[in-house]
Amino acid sequence: MSNYNLILASASPRRKELLQQVGAAFEVCPSQGEETITTQDPAQAVMELSRQKAAEVAKRLGNPPAQDSPKPHPCRHGGRDNRGTIVLGADTLVAFAGKILGKPKGQEEAKSMLRMLSGNTHSVFTGVTLCINREGQEDVQSFYEETEVTLYPMTERQIAGYVATGEPMDKAGSYGIQGRFAVHIQGIRGDYNNVVGLPVARIYQELMKSGIEIL
Amino acid sequence: MSNYNLILASASPRRKELLQQVGAAFEVCPSQGEETITTQDPAQAVMELSRQKAAEVAKRLGNPPAQDSPKPHPCRHGGRDNRGTIVLGADTLVAFAGKILGKPKGQEEAKSMLRMLSGNTHSVFTGVTLCINREGQEDVQSFYEETEVTLYPMTERQIAGYVATGEPMDKAGSYGIQGRFAVHIQGIRGDYNNVVGLPVARIYQELMKSGIEIL
Repeated sequence: MSNYNLILASASPRRKELLQQVGAAFEVCPSQGEETITTQDPAQAVMELSRQKAAEVAKRLGNPPAQDSPKPHPCRHGGRDNRGTIVLGADTLVAFAGKILGKPKGQEEAKSMLRMLSGNTHSVFTGVTLCINREGQEDVQSFYEETEVTLYPMTERQIAGYVATGEPMDKAGSYGIQGRFAVHIQGIRGDYNNVVGLPVARIYQELMKSGIEIL
Repeated sequence: MSNYNLILASASPRRKELLQQVGAAFEVCPSQGEETITTQDPAQAVMELSRQKAAEVAKRLGNPPAQDSPKPHPCRHGGRDNRGTIVLGADTLVAFAGKILGKPKGQEEAKSMLRMLSGNTHSVFTGVTLCINREGQEDVQSFYEETEVTLYPMTERQIAGYVATGEPMDKAGSYGIQGRFAVHIQGIRGDYNNVVGLPVARIYQELMKSGIEIL
């Protein structure tokens, strides 16, 4: 068992599934703020966003609400045990032809994103920040992974059919690689789970380098 | 709805999951024979094996047992409706340094395969054969997909820990990309689902070229 409590600062069901899949023990404590980016560089942007998410949750955990607070926060951990804490923030963006693509605002935007990506290669960036706290010492690490994804050409009918499933609406770039969209993906270059939303391999390897085993 | 009955000639739960994931309607009718290869070329070998699997099941479906057979075969389809039939056979092998790696015969062989793959790039080949039957006309298509997989270096402890989970035992190359082994995978080049065991995208695209929609 790990000597650290791992906290996932994200409400994404896909990130949760990925951590479960590799057998990590963790709790979910989603960040609540609105993140902002100060750069149009996708690698810098995802790291910046992941830092804001992790920092918000780490701050909340380190500052439990006062005892007379009417509603104790569900993500409070203060003093529960003497293990360290790792807060994991992550953010995923799609980049194509110098443009950053986030989640679509509606079905029309989803269609136009898919038309753009159809038959082409785009990049998926996931930024990760680990706020590692042990005995009051805080260490913050940020990194990103980039995966190239190549799509087969899609017909208008295929695009409309996929958008009608509703799957694109909560996903950067308007598709989810792990659902029925799989039939449109010719290949990738890089880490698959990074496209799903969390580069679990890189996270595991980076923590191992810091002497931390989470599995 | 498709005008074809799709029959998966494989008992692999992973292949079944992949077809379910993309929303295909299909039945499972595993091949039962012992396949044999006449080549050491991995691409040719997986196509050969997939052909044998698909052909065995297609033959069985086309030749229902006699009416007085005490036990009707569960995979009999003869004359049920006037839709066509697609029998899908698949086989997956791992190749590294000119050697073909199948399923390990025991824990020691699993460990030695993983030691070999650790820190290196190997190839995963999945061969697919589609036996398409419509109004007595049979069309047989075989193809393969190759995906390169790069592993992070693994320690003896990580190898032993993974082998102890039992996961390697029914898998070519001694690992499953979609389970807890994910933390050891640095990246891939090609189709991810091909490594899982079925290149559903390529299958969908090849069938579309033949004018057949399975979704």
